[in-house]
Amino acid sequence: MKKNLLFTPGPTPIPPEALLAMAQPIDYHRSNATAALIKDVLEKLKHVFQTENDVLFLTSSGTGAMEGAVSNLLSRGEKAIVIRSGKFGERWGEICATYGIEVIPIDVTWGNSVEPDIVASALAEHTDVKAVFATLCETSTGVLHDIEALARLTRIRPTLLVVDAVSALGADDLQMDNWGVDVVVSCSQKGLMTPPGLAFAAVNQRAWDAVERSDLPKYYLDFRKAYESGLEGSVPYTPAVTLLTALQQALNRICAEGIQHTIDRHNRLALATRSAIKALGLPLFAASPANTLTSIRLPEGIDGKALINLMRDTYGITYAGGQSQLSGKIVRIAHLGWMNENDVIVAISAFERGLVEIGHAIPLGAGVSAAQEIFTQ
Amino acid sequence: MKKNLLFTPGPTPIPPEALLAMAQPIDYHRSNATAALIKDVLEKLKHVFQTENDVLFLTSSGTGAMEGAVSNLLSRGEKAIVIRSGKFGERWGEICATYGIEVIPIDVTWGNSVEPDIVASALAEHTDVKAVFATLCETSTGVLHDIEALARLTRIRPTLLVVDAVSALGADDLQMDNWGVDVVVSCSQKGLMTPPGLAFAAVNQRAWDAVERSDLPKYYLDFRKAYESGLEGSVPYTPAVTLLTALQQALNRICAEGIQHTIDRHNRLALATRSAIKALGLPLFAASPANTLTSIRLPEGIDGKALINLMRDTYGITYAGGQSQLSGKIVRIAHLGWMNENDVIVAISAFERGLVEIGHAIPLGAGVSAAQEIFTQ
Repeated sequence: MKKNLLFTPGPTPIPPEALLAMAQPIDYHRSNATAALIKDVLEKLKHVFQTENDVLFLTSSGTGAMEGAVSNLLSRGEKAIVIRSGKFGERWGEICATYGIEVIPIDVTWGNSVEPDIVASALAEHTDVKAVFATLCETSTGVLHDIEALARLTRIRPTLLVVDAVSALGADDLQMDNWGVDVVVSCSQKGLMTPPGLAFAAVNQRAWDAVERSDLPKYYLDFRKAYESGLEGSVPYTPAVTLLTALQQALNRICAEGIQHTIDRHNRLALATRSAIKALGLPLFAASPANTLTSIRLPEGIDGKALINLMRDTYGITYAGGQSQLSGKIVRIAHLGWMNENDVIVAISAFERGLVEIGHAIPLGAGVSAAQEIFTQ
Repeated sequence: MKKNLLFTPGPTPIPPEALLAMAQPIDYHRSNATAALIKDVLEKLKHVFQTENDVLFLTSSGTGAMEGAVSNLLSRGEKAIVIRSGKFGERWGEICATYGIEVIPIDVTWGNSVEPDIVASALAEHTDVKAVFATLCETSTGVLHDIEALARLTRIRPTLLVVDAVSALGADDLQMDNWGVDVVVSCSQKGLMTPPGLAFAAVNQRAWDAVERSDLPKYYLDFRKAYESGLEGSVPYTPAVTLLTALQQALNRICAEGIQHTIDRHNRLALATRSAIKALGLPLFAASPANTLTSIRLPEGIDGKALINLMRDTYGITYAGGQSQLSGKIVRIAHLGWMNENDVIVAISAFERGLVEIGHAIPLGAGVSAAQEIFTQ
């Protein structure tokens, strides 16, 4: 009796009312009902983004919003600092390079978060940098970056701070307005518990001023068009109406819980998972781990791919493996979105059994009981 | 007891098995099951595109694939002929202008299709034109363009023919390989009976050669990355998995019917609708009408917007109105996708009642019986 469970950092499980919303007959995108849907969704997203800025959406993966942030904010020949601590930081650099932006990279060892002092030095050295591209949770390593510290550096300068919160929005704290972050991009299939296909950007006034000056080419990913249409409950191009109906249901859950409680819940799930992994004698990969997911460095001799295949095929449990240079070396267990304490117990219990089955002796139940300790506190 | 029925040229109604597929728990996009899903969908799309070329997909609206066709095929400073006979032809021109492409416009009166001779003259005059951007069905007017005639002009030259088949794929005939069309773009929410959020491009070898040389910036809309990933059942970025599951169901319907029969069905529905409109004494707006939708020029004094609102609010029937310069002046009735003869009878019957109710006297039932005549032939 197989039950498939996703512990991947996106797509994450979808609540039943969001699934059922998608099974309803589709509505025309230029209807009053869809206009009300779009307005409702965009209003609720402000709560999740912790901002008074209006949020815009695109029908695309999160990468579409990342590319839009580059092509809408920057102009030919400008410079940007890119913090590269994993696959998604590298993506910022690749997109900037595509548009001929001069990239000043700050490379961080995978598994570590950036030292704000190093960013401060780079900003002091390159006073003409237009933007800093950073990542809230680097999904490829499970690292949380100190965005608040970075914002303290940028908000006193004309330099913009652009944050990829693709995986971490709604799981790790990101106080866009309080901290002074200029642009936050995210998408639907992570903390927002909705299928992939919608991407979002929250843009403050400093950033809109840069958009006004930008001369890089953009059409489908044009932030201004998406933003202005959204204010009217409209869209420049046919949106993924079905996914918007699911998103509305998922946002109702987050708004009912309250974003701070949502983040607290993710924090508790993450603490329990980390405690469990330590109790199993395995090292965490991330020096500053996010609430979004937990990365575990596997012992030498354990084939991460084999472990993940075993878990998926035998137990119906899908974890994520390592990407790029970490392929086969780490396991990533997400506790993200529509997740509670029972889900984490299942994730840990199955992980324990998988380790034993693949030949790595651990004390069965040690992880589960460590997690239970956290949950009963 | 309201039953909402969509006669809009996208989104179109979704068959029940496609709706229910979306209500299933979501799968990880890097799973064997999703890889098999992607391969199956891309294989079946070849049948619909009438091509042996592999098809690529993007998570975006159709406009994303249109922009991708420009940014992937062309290079800085190149020239393109753009056929502008409505809103979507104009969109080709806008996208080209965004990327600094020199546009040689061929403007056609809205409601007419382009004269191939005019395109031939333009090609003779501008021998260095890299591509001709055309539209199969100009959705804003309901006009069908003679793509086969245009392909006869381009396939004997290095000039590429790029066709927007966004609304007409699966409804109007487009024999990509037989005619020698180089690139065809389309999307999910029209003839493919799937919610919006997926876009497609079929690209032949001549066009891939141009992609190799192209120096315009593209990242999210990179055709090469999408194509090469798709061959492996993979994706460069998290795709709209849910929409792919719906698309698979919808494609099963088209493949079971067979693309030629699917087009024939649309042709019969269109013939009946046009016959009905003529029987009501109203003029068709399109000189060469498509199978995709029927555009009706409203009599002077009839407010098209009021008619459309009445139909939607009172009868639950959604037609599309006119766009841009045609706002309020035409009604567009789509017979597109998951549609059969009974649907067309409903569309016509409701239209008759709406006309009477808004004060335009017509012989009630004249349209319905004209359609029935076609269906009984």
